[in-house]
Amino acid sequence: MDFRSDNTASVAEEIMAAITAANVGTAAGYGDDDITRRLQPAYSELFETEVRVFPVLTGTVANALSASVLSPPWGAIFAEAESHINQDECGAPELFTGGAKLIALEGRGGKIPPEELRRRLAAAGQGFVHAAQPAAFSVTQTSEAGAVYSAAEIAELSAIAKESGLGVHMDGARFANAVAALNDGNESVSPADLTWRAGVDVLSFGATKNGALGAEAIILFRTDLAEEMSFRHKRAGQLASKMRYISAQLAAYIEDGLWLRLADHANRMCAQLADGLGALDAVSLDAFGGANELFVELPGETVVALREEGFEFYDWPEVIAAEIGRRSSIRLVTRHDTRESEVEGLIAAVKRLAG
Amino acid sequence: MDFRSDNTASVAEEIMAAITAANVGTAAGYGDDDITRRLQPAYSELFETEVRVFPVLTGTVANALSASVLSPPWGAIFAEAESHINQDECGAPELFTGGAKLIALEGRGGKIPPEELRRRLAAAGQGFVHAAQPAAFSVTQTSEAGAVYSAAEIAELSAIAKESGLGVHMDGARFANAVAALNDGNESVSPADLTWRAGVDVLSFGATKNGALGAEAIILFRTDLAEEMSFRHKRAGQLASKMRYISAQLAAYIEDGLWLRLADHANRMCAQLADGLGALDAVSLDAFGGANELFVELPGETVVALREEGFEFYDWPEVIAAEIGRRSSIRLVTRHDTRESEVEGLIAAVKRLAG
Amino acid sequence: MDFRSDNTASVAEEIMAAITAANVGTAAGYGDDDITRRLQPAYSELFETEVRVFPVLTGTVANALSASVLSPPWGAIFAEAESHINQDECGAPELFTGGAKLIALEGRGGKIPPEELRRRLAAAGQGFVHAAQPAAFSVTQTSEAGAVYSAAEIAELSAIAKESGLGVHMDGARFANAVAALNDGNESVSPADLTWRAGVDVLSFGATKNGALGAEAIILFRTDLAEEMSFRHKRAGQLASKMRYISAQLAAYIEDGLWLRLADHANRMCAQLADGLGALDAVSLDAFGGANELFVELPGETVVALREEGFEFYDWPEVIAAEIGRRSSIRLVTRHDTRESEVEGLIAAVKRLAG
Amino acid sequence: MDFRSDNTASVAEEIMAAITAANVGTAAGYGDDDITRRLQPAYSELFETEVRVFPVLTGTVANALSASVLSPPWGAIFAEAESHINQDECGAPELFTGGAKLIALEGRGGKIPPEELRRRLAAAGQGFVHAAQPAAFSVTQTSEAGAVYSAAEIAELSAIAKESGLGVHMDGARFANAVAALNDGNESVSPADLTWRAGVDVLSFGATKNGALGAEAIILFRTDLAEEMSFRHKRAGQLASKMRYISAQLAAYIEDGLWLRLADHANRMCAQLADGLGALDAVSLDAFGGANELFVELPGETVVALREEGFEFYDWPEVIAAEIGRRSSIRLVTRHDTRESEVEGLIAAVKRLAG
Repeated sequence: MDFRSDNTASVAEEIMAAITAANVGTAAGYGDDDITRRLQPAYSELFETEVRVFPVLTGTVANALSASVLSPPWGAIFAEAESHINQDECGAPELFTGGAKLIALEGRGGKIPPEELRRRLAAAGQGFVHAAQPAAFSVTQTSEAGAVYSAAEIAELSAIAKESGLGVHMDGARFANAVAALNDGNESVSPADLTWRAGVDVLSFGATKNGALGAEAIILFRTDLAEEMSFRHKRAGQLASKMRYISAQLAAYIEDGLWLRLADHANRMCAQLADGLGALDAVSLDAFGGANELFVELPGETVVALREEGFEFYDWPEVIAAEIGRRSSIRLVTRHDTRESEVEGLIAAVKRLAG
Repeated sequence: MDFRSDNTASVAEEIMAAITAANVGTAAGYGDDDITRRLQPAYSELFETEVRVFPVLTGTVANALSASVLSPPWGAIFAEAESHINQDECGAPELFTGGAKLIALEGRGGKIPPEELRRRLAAAGQGFVHAAQPAAFSVTQTSEAGAVYSAAEIAELSAIAKESGLGVHMDGARFANAVAALNDGNESVSPADLTWRAGVDVLSFGATKNGALGAEAIILFRTDLAEEMSFRHKRAGQLASKMRYISAQLAAYIEDGLWLRLADHANRMCAQLADGLGALDAVSLDAFGGANELFVELPGETVVALREEGFEFYDWPEVIAAEIGRRSSIRLVTRHDTRESEVEGLIAAVKRLAG
Repeated sequence: MDFRSDNTASVAEEIMAAITAANVGTAAGYGDDDITRRLQPAYSELFETEVRVFPVLTGTVANALSASVLSPPWGAIFAEAESHINQDECGAPELFTGGAKLIALEGRGGKIPPEELRRRLAAAGQGFVHAAQPAAFSVTQTSEAGAVYSAAEIAELSAIAKESGLGVHMDGARFANAVAALNDGNESVSPADLTWRAGVDVLSFGATKNGALGAEAIILFRTDLAEEMSFRHKRAGQLASKMRYISAQLAAYIEDGLWLRLADHANRMCAQLADGLGALDAVSLDAFGGANELFVELPGETVVALREEGFEFYDWPEVIAAEIGRRSSIRLVTRHDTRESEVEGLIAAVKRLAG
Repeated sequence: MDFRSDNTASVAEEIMAAITAANVGTAAGYGDDDITRRLQPAYSELFETEVRVFPVLTGTVANALSASVLSPPWGAIFAEAESHINQDECGAPELFTGGAKLIALEGRGGKIPPEELRRRLAAAGQGFVHAAQPAAFSVTQTSEAGAVYSAAEIAELSAIAKESGLGVHMDGARFANAVAALNDGNESVSPADLTWRAGVDVLSFGATKNGALGAEAIILFRTDLAEEMSFRHKRAGQLASKMRYISAQLAAYIEDGLWLRLADHANRMCAQLADGLGALDAVSLDAFGGANELFVELPGETVVALREEGFEFYDWPEVIAAEIGRRSSIRLVTRHDTRESEVEGLIAAVKRLAG
């Protein structure tokens, strides 16, 4: 019963099948194969515009390389304080950009308030030679805190960024969960609406957390960045010699809506958790964003007892040992392969222990 | 009938089986899983000494990260002019080291002559603050030209390097082919003999070209470099969230000698090619190194005709359009999955066309 | 009547004389001259311990190179949000460190509160491979806001930093003003007390703002860093071929207490300003730190009128056009060569205009 | 009697006077002063076209920053093996470009043969994603070996470089000596003829070796590079706070032809040496290039004896202890302030010792 992260998930069977199917005969190395070539039209169709796709191994690389084509070495990149690109990459964006500076924005409710971006841009010293030059804005969809931005919210932030001449990056490690969440009810929002139509120039399109083996795609909506990216991508060690096996994952991932079906399952499991736990008096929930993360406050002793029973999850926002007699805060993440029995088991256990 | 490269090869079935076997349940992300943890003892056993293993996606990253723990940003790294680390990484070593300088050594017969290394070191300005400081020596085993260094040859080069205080790196993208070649006859040379016993500090241990899906291992014989490497590895975007699938490849690769069986097959296919083609008057061969690469000179019209019949291979040393009436030089590479019929087909075709 | 900055100052006559005196005959290049060699004992004597001195052109380089020997590329450097090293170097620390990350601390009263440093260190993820690794702490003396840290305050901050294994850097662009301020009354605090005895490892020792032509010194209290620094210093383009002319400035600067006499004058001019302006009802002052910067709030129309009369100064904290009918905030800086008549002129003008 | 280098020279009196003249009153910092502003029109007039001037401290920085606006981090920069930019900057070009690769060209007679540049460019893998991308060509005028390129020679090399899309940089640490040498006889060649009219995009314009205190200028003939350079220049720590004192040197240097008068003196001193020593049987000279460097072969015992008599010079091409009974090779450099008596003294001594 594992609620630690979606990166503990298995590989979806359709994706494993695609890898196996790719494993026939020989194929040209370094992405000069048929499967890789088909990614361009496939993703262009998905996004309803011509895009350029660069497969990479990890979200770290996807974010850092994306930053590197939007910011010069003396640039400033604005991102939420809690975002991966700001605090979880051990300096990867700094490495791949050649020394750009991340400017931490304070989020509210898991999102970046437009006025915060506006305020920090106003103070940023554009054109002032002593200051790192405002170059890019990065927004995380689904955000680190599990919040999902609407297309209008993305567009508003992008517009502010673009007024100041910044490029816009979206960290979409959980983009699928956001798209699935926003298409859950009556409304319909396309991947295009949430990205380039809302001003996004470059997208880190995540697949690994949502069923791939190890594959993310950098999607360039600004195709003029592709030539530069091709050299950066190679130089970062991401031009895999047997690219076909990474590309096969990315192809299968978006075929017949697989990515949204997988994300939808994870989201529904999380909604079920939110419903079940939210009904209990001893539990307080952060607002559930609709995607696959839930932040929960419980009595410390319940947290301890849950772990003793084999439930796995992380303390959040930071790792603090749960203590008897205090409230304790944890993060629960559901996956494309979370079983309903896991969710029911957790709800039942909390009910029993803390109810 | 594909003789382009060993990176056009498929994934060996044992390795695909290991990936599938790893795809059960959940596992902690970022290498904190059982499969990854078992790599340390497994590779320590293989190399008969305690090593630290860092799985990465590509040889580019393996080489560049290896360089980065052996050279400061102001360091000089000595490597053969034709080596990957010098000329095929689009600046990756420069990126990951923070700007170190590659010093190109002139090879002879596909290997670095000891006196060439000695000469360049003597002229390198050690301690002279204006010069990039001699920091590392990198040797490629099997070399770019298909040559295999003996343990004594490696040891001699390492000793020269170490006299000047340099660290020693081995680019082992085709290390398996070298080990298999050196153990082909009566003699027995262990992986340990060819690496740390011969002075190698860090090894790029290749698996991708020899049957893996996309996995290389950086092997640190100097375990004191492991802490630094752990941060560099993450920062390079190589700490894959679902590391278990990369580690599973690296585990299966060395289990029960699979890596050497795969390499041995490739080498034997190449030896068969060398025998068959070498017997033909119209063909001249470079010395066959015993591994899986063969460099062949043929009449230009034969090269053209072979391609028309569907044989695939690269012009070498550089891409020059083969011309009628001239001799033309090509590279032939065999793989773990090269079929004997491919080899026989090529020999027969050359015989028919040029014999 | 110029109160813009101390970098608008002239070169002190003693320093100009030293440059002229150095201009006799030939001298070995690249710092291998007598004047440069004498810097080591002279500064070692000044600081009562063996130090290594690296002359550089600017404070930007002094800070960035200092950071580079205290932080690896994946390191985090903690500094006040308003400090030069954090916000006024256009990415120089990121360049010279190879991509380290500045972590902005919130100051209070122009200084870093110990609990702020403690709090940020606790949250910094030491040893957590995903986080930039806490590596260095940088404190500015005199601070950007004109505040002067006592030796005890420096020691307290350093101790917190060192508990976490951080190196300690002091940006002493206005170190002279701080030392002069702290020795103004009965107490006596030595340069050693304020640096290495208080835990400082590396000091950017400023001279340019306080009477030099263009010379700063990186002072290494940790002499083990000197070898690395010698290569970084050259590579940064700071090993001037005619070093003697930079060294002559640094030598004259500390001879017979010149540096403190110059700073003392600047400080006294500022104290006089603080006294004069503080007595006026229309003026509110930030706490005067005792060094050579004063932050003043005035009616907007007074600010406009002062400028019309030829007084020069900067709006502060940021450049906002002074407006009639609003209060406006400005920074006043005094120099080693500020004339008493300038100070009296400004006080009189404010009195007349706003009194 | 110092023939070590032109960087052992004193500061020319006109330049010292200009520094002193600049030392009046206050002036805005960071280059926003009148003296600095006048550099743009003054150098534009000198070069007969609109240029942008960036003052820096050293030739190392001038070269490395010049490279950084002509090459991306994954670029290749072609330069003579012996050139400063290739072998004497301790990795500065690699640092400031973010990791570009220097490709060493083999010179002949102290110059780069056009066919050598052509050959290396042809083999460089332009557009091939695995190779560092040909980006810039750097030529040294006067060359390391004391050779002076004619305008036609520069133009031919530039044309080859530009055919491949490369930017062209000239390292003009001794540009003055080259211009003076080329205008020595009847012909007249302007600074413009030798730079932008011959295809040069960026010039490192040296002044330090030829009479300045510490000042070089980066001259951008491609003014579109100025915005990027302004940030790189600051970030490199070269935006000196008291810029007026560096700019004053650069202004005085080109006023009324001072730079050419100074260089002309140095050249004449060298010509006199060449004449005097060339007449002696025991001495063999490399071809004298017309500038201020002379390479001489002498009996080893003469070299030893000259040093005992107080003559100073460097062994060249490398530092080899002169030995009795062998020929020994030395470099002699003359300066703007070399006295005729020094030259006569050296000739007389060699005559006496070896004649």
